[in-house]
Amino acid sequence: MRAWRENLDIMTDSLKVALLGGGTVGSQVARLMTANAADLAARAGASLELVGVAVRDTSRSRDGIDDALLTDDPAALVARSDVDIVVEVMGGLKPTESLLLTAMAHGASVVSANKALIASRGPELHAAAEANGVDLYYEAAVAGAIPLLRPLRESLVGDRVRRVLGIVNGTTNYILTKMDEDGARYEDVLAEAQRLGYAEADPTADVEGHDAAAKAAILAGLAFHSSVSYDQVSCEGISRITPEDMAAAKASGFVVKLLAVAELADDEAGIVVRVHPAMVPRSHPLASVRDAYNAVFVEAAAAGQVMFYGRGAGGEPTASAVLGDLVAVARNRLAGRPGPGRSDYAGLPVLPLGMATTRYAVSLVVHDRPGALAAVAQVFADGGVSLQSVRQEGGLEEGAPDASLQVRTHVAAEADLQAVVQRLRTLEQVKEVAGVIRVEGGPDS
Amino acid sequence: MRAWRENLDIMTDSLKVALLGGGTVGSQVARLMTANAADLAARAGASLELVGVAVRDTSRSRDGIDDALLTDDPAALVARSDVDIVVEVMGGLKPTESLLLTAMAHGASVVSANKALIASRGPELHAAAEANGVDLYYEAAVAGAIPLLRPLRESLVGDRVRRVLGIVNGTTNYILTKMDEDGARYEDVLAEAQRLGYAEADPTADVEGHDAAAKAAILAGLAFHSSVSYDQVSCEGISRITPEDMAAAKASGFVVKLLAVAELADDEAGIVVRVHPAMVPRSHPLASVRDAYNAVFVEAAAAGQVMFYGRGAGGEPTASAVLGDLVAVARNRLAGRPGPGRSDYAGLPVLPLGMATTRYAVSLVVHDRPGALAAVAQVFADGGVSLQSVRQEGGLEEGAPDASLQVRTHVAAEADLQAVVQRLRTLEQVKEVAGVIRVEGGPDS
Repeated sequence: MRAWRENLDIMTDSLKVALLGGGTVGSQVARLMTANAADLAARAGASLELVGVAVRDTSRSRDGIDDALLTDDPAALVARSDVDIVVEVMGGLKPTESLLLTAMAHGASVVSANKALIASRGPELHAAAEANGVDLYYEAAVAGAIPLLRPLRESLVGDRVRRVLGIVNGTTNYILTKMDEDGARYEDVLAEAQRLGYAEADPTADVEGHDAAAKAAILAGLAFHSSVSYDQVSCEGISRITPEDMAAAKASGFVVKLLAVAELADDEAGIVVRVHPAMVPRSHPLASVRDAYNAVFVEAAAAGQVMFYGRGAGGEPTASAVLGDLVAVARNRLAGRPGPGRSDYAGLPVLPLGMATTRYAVSLVVHDRPGALAAVAQVFADGGVSLQSVRQEGGLEEGAPDASLQVRTHVAAEADLQAVVQRLRTLEQVKEVAGVIRVEGGPDS
Repeated sequence: MRAWRENLDIMTDSLKVALLGGGTVGSQVARLMTANAADLAARAGASLELVGVAVRDTSRSRDGIDDALLTDDPAALVARSDVDIVVEVMGGLKPTESLLLTAMAHGASVVSANKALIASRGPELHAAAEANGVDLYYEAAVAGAIPLLRPLRESLVGDRVRRVLGIVNGTTNYILTKMDEDGARYEDVLAEAQRLGYAEADPTADVEGHDAAAKAAILAGLAFHSSVSYDQVSCEGISRITPEDMAAAKASGFVVKLLAVAELADDEAGIVVRVHPAMVPRSHPLASVRDAYNAVFVEAAAAGQVMFYGRGAGGEPTASAVLGDLVAVARNRLAGRPGPGRSDYAGLPVLPLGMATTRYAVSLVVHDRPGALAAVAQVFADGGVSLQSVRQEGGLEEGAPDASLQVRTHVAAEADLQAVVQRLRTLEQVKEVAGVIRVEGGPDS
């Protein structure tokens, strides 16, 4: 980039940046701050000087980070009065939260990639930012390199978001992609993902949906101008998805994806935020989001559907988002005022999962007796859940002892559907409710 | 949205907004400003009061606009000293430019949806904004409701964009979709599009690529922090695309799309900005962008590929983008300073089309003589253009007088390819160079 550098004016201003964390993301942030220094300075309006990197083990050198900058005392680093911006990519809740509060109390703005922290302590951290007149930005916390939070906060801010629907966890999407394409078992794909470094040794946060739930909470809060915390998100992971589930979905023209959904209730009096596996029609754009890619649909009253797609994780993509925030925060600092803060004026309550409305696929094993189908259909009808399709396999005409029923519903309330499922379990004609899975991305949802 | 309204604090501040244009977009802007007034006020931090709407014909009532606000004197409206923000959705270069300059000279910030004006007079308008300490925002000028300019200016600002590639004109995409799916002729689909209101009576700006070129200029300037004006964009439209071109593309697993491309030259010493039809592999996400939808890929060094997708035109989607800017500009105004202005520090030159590098598909009709293929291949080799595939139809083995050759190249410089084509035209074995089309979105481009 010779030409770019030659055209730079000499920068007189300089901002001091402290980095918490020197792992995969941190070392990329440090590397890019050096490699792109001239461009970042021109864009921010001041050079960005890395003054310290807090790591656990200072004896180990890190690519792209000057050894002299390493420190194992993050508390001292964030308490430096000359630090303008603290970039936090160390993760975890403790001691990270108190480090960021200290940084802000000392007048530093904060850029964080910590979804768990923001999703659980967002209001407190935002309050601290506001009280200290500093910025708290965290684009990298959701969907890696994909610009998503800023578009929600700023571009779609004149519209009314109705729904956010997306694939926001790369590990589970990798596993589900392999299960769909190779017919493999969950346990086998997980083991392979761990071997390849796509899944962690303890994969719980990913496979049980906790990571996606943290992102869903952040997205929901921004989209609906309300406070949504991690523990308000209904969450179900992918560990119980079987090759049979995948095959059944495939046979019906669907694929199973782990989705994060945040949506306004029909009466607009609250929002439902949920993470769970769902069947998505193969023709839907989300169906073709493979492996570790992320994609998020935002549906707004005037804009219609808007989709954002890209790499949801990894050192470089996450560092790209961190550096974007770093430049934005630096500009604000030079301009002498923070950017727009938290917007939770709407104060919409997070409603229980029972108030969610979507479509469902229910798999049943019924005793092969005359009237089984009629009895099952009657339970749905009595429960106020209308049917879109019923597919029967085996049964009467073949003289088999059991028949398998695949029922797909129209849009129904989760509570109504669950009541129907309870009732089906007690029905003498029903041997087993083999599976219940939500269906998203269809024509009427 | 009862709950949202109840939670609003009483607003003491108010900002005065003047609207230039009361057509499809303008009336949606006015309607949404009223319908969403409370939410917009809460998000902006002040109520947004519409104080006048300049239209050509004040005798005609417009849905959603109070008749009392209509005026046919835009010059007087923008010269009002009490107007805080001027929203321009009237289009055209004159008198629009002078109206916006007047507005800014009187201290008003400007939100515009006028791609032609921004693409041709961007530097002058930005200079006026800077001189007057006001904002000039125009998210709606490119790709309607899709948040694209703000992500480029702010989210990806810490990264190095290498390439922007997208479908940014809905009319041509509608026509090409129909030609691809129905095998219809360009003229017939255009006539149908005009009948349906998807194409204008004079469709030149759309079908010859001028509209896309204006958007490409804006995207290129933002992506590469340089000045790019409309007349620097190489531009070729879709009016010469035949059903045979579409069929040939289809047979090879491609679809023809009108693309806007802005990319850094290999040596990073300049950029090439071009609009032209191109073959895109059917497996590429852009291939499935149908009808009036838009989609833009941004490729950056650290982020990798990021895609933005949504409705690229229409009253409501465009109004969504306008209102997002309106809220952002209002926030800046209340904070007492404009947002980040134009960034053209890199000053990269726009290189001639000959310096573009991409892949090509060349269709030839050759005389059926021994050695024709060898002679053609030699011309490509001599010109430094290496071949990816050659497909021959008819010819020697069937005793037909002519043979058809479909040649696809690896990545080559446009100037080299054009020299090869010139040479082919003079080759005695070649009867006709039937077509040359670029190939984008492949594995090595």
